[in-house]
Amino acid sequence: MKLATLKTEKRDGALLVVKRDLSAWTRADDVAPTLQAALDDWAQVEPKLRERAKELEAGRVPAEAFEVQRLLAPLPRAYEWVDGSAYLNHILLVRKARKAAPPPGLETDPLVYQGGSGDLLPPTADIVIRDEAWGCDFESEVAVVLGDVPMGTTKADAAKCVRLVLLANDVSLRHLIPDELAKGFGFFQSKPATAFSPVACTPDELGEAWKDGRVHLTLKTWLNGVQVGDTHAGPEMHFSFFDLVQHLAKTRNYVAGTLLGSGTVSNADRARGISCLAERRMIETIDEGAPKTPFLKDGDRVELEMRLPDGTSVFGRLDQRVRLVK
Amino acid sequence: MKLATLKTEKRDGALLVVKRDLSAWTRADDVAPTLQAALDDWAQVEPKLRERAKELEAGRVPAEAFEVQRLLAPLPRAYEWVDGSAYLNHILLVRKARKAAPPPGLETDPLVYQGGSGDLLPPTADIVIRDEAWGCDFESEVAVVLGDVPMGTTKADAAKCVRLVLLANDVSLRHLIPDELAKGFGFFQSKPATAFSPVACTPDELGEAWKDGRVHLTLKTWLNGVQVGDTHAGPEMHFSFFDLVQHLAKTRNYVAGTLLGSGTVSNADRARGISCLAERRMIETIDEGAPKTPFLKDGDRVELEMRLPDGTSVFGRLDQRVRLVK
Repeated sequence: MKLATLKTEKRDGALLVVKRDLSAWTRADDVAPTLQAALDDWAQVEPKLRERAKELEAGRVPAEAFEVQRLLAPLPRAYEWVDGSAYLNHILLVRKARKAAPPPGLETDPLVYQGGSGDLLPPTADIVIRDEAWGCDFESEVAVVLGDVPMGTTKADAAKCVRLVLLANDVSLRHLIPDELAKGFGFFQSKPATAFSPVACTPDELGEAWKDGRVHLTLKTWLNGVQVGDTHAGPEMHFSFFDLVQHLAKTRNYVAGTLLGSGTVSNADRARGISCLAERRMIETIDEGAPKTPFLKDGDRVELEMRLPDGTSVFGRLDQRVRLVK
Repeated sequence: MKLATLKTEKRDGALLVVKRDLSAWTRADDVAPTLQAALDDWAQVEPKLRERAKELEAGRVPAEAFEVQRLLAPLPRAYEWVDGSAYLNHILLVRKARKAAPPPGLETDPLVYQGGSGDLLPPTADIVIRDEAWGCDFESEVAVVLGDVPMGTTKADAAKCVRLVLLANDVSLRHLIPDELAKGFGFFQSKPATAFSPVACTPDELGEAWKDGRVHLTLKTWLNGVQVGDTHAGPEMHFSFFDLVQHLAKTRNYVAGTLLGSGTVSNADRARGISCLAERRMIETIDEGAPKTPFLKDGDRVELEMRLPDGTSVFGRLDQRVRLVK
């Protein structure tokens, strides 16, 4: 089942069920007004939404053409956005570029940070920045939406906490990061609003590709129309979403609708390209002594998409432009 | 106007208007079903709630006796919980205890961290911990609830973004902090669920005590019935809530209902006591070479309250016990 959120006059929009091939949608706000409302009462609501999806596929309900510009993020505001950094190649590259040792516990203790979740961007929203000197970068990621997760949930129980899968562009302001991390309290100003894919889907839509809490598909990224990455989201995700859930739940509970990200998808094989400009700059630094690729500028366009082996776009395409405002 | 949230079968409870002396409340969920709903549409809803409050004070609407056990946190789940560290004495004490220099930008660049906001504890909820060795501590704080804050909002415009004021117990797991901060991504497991005061009030309820984005009243803390702190929340709050709003809004927008905390209220005058056990342990370390006060244990009770000069409890009392679960 694929779900999305129609932009309306309400802050949380209206729940849509989307056709598997993303050609059309039908409203489902009579079943649950919003995606958050559906997640709040998932056991009751899910069967009804699945029935609606079946009817949509069969052409038995009124449908409208899929128009990505009319969509908000699946969750336009969420109660938590927790982002991991589960691809070790990304961490190792960052450290190598600044000649630092890998962090202790690299392979046993996941890195996660708490992101802002009040303002989540639609898939085609501009990335608004107030200063190009902040070093704006994209980060192509996979994410999941969780159901209620009680404190103490283990990896073994985590599978039943995953409700939906989607993509995220975890926008980062690279030049604000060093000073901010030096303060010791983690990211804050350096992490502006995150954007999400048009569609969130139940894990079964991924078929065989959803395995062990990982999405075994490649994630394509384009910069100004040129493909810059086709990174594999599966094997090199060192900590699975199930591992991350166990890490999160050590000391507190999470409510339904919590968003959990994988961190930048990153592969050791350089031929697969990049999911963020910082990695290309790190490779340039390692190989040539200094970065030469600039960060994003006013007007730059970033696109993200993930397809099934048969070519079906799973989540639709994020398609964003950077917009400098003063 | 004083507002609270009644526990119901719904996740966000039901909105209450509370009498100024906290003796009684009346339901207001016919005006707006929840506090979040009221904040979402504040310009329309506020006058109606103020009218209800007036009727409650005059005894013209049905009222029920105030029973703190029936309350949730004013916002049982929120879209953001951002906590500052605005009392420099607290930061300096921490650093001094570990013989470290004050952080760069101490007086010009506020420290804030992004906290988890999905699970916010009622004022009388147990502080549930899974291991006493994690070093559970309270932190007595002042907090505000913001309206919509556009990116780029300045200190001068911040006053009109503050909707409500309340108290918070920002529970911390002290022994998890060093390893977590060493990873560089900030607090995560070391910050379990935060608890909030029974009542949130509009700034005008504070009268003269609400000035320059600070609450000029003292915050009392009791541990197992013994008063341990009567710290003044006003003059030593180096960064006001308005400063903090400007800091937050540098790179992103915030939605109505964002919670913003002051950080542990802390005074240079030791006679005022403490708002967290870590400070007492730091003082012991500085004076005697090692801490001797233990962190919280199963069954320990923590209370927080702030009163007006006339004795009126502004927000009601947080009254929590630590409960160890295995």
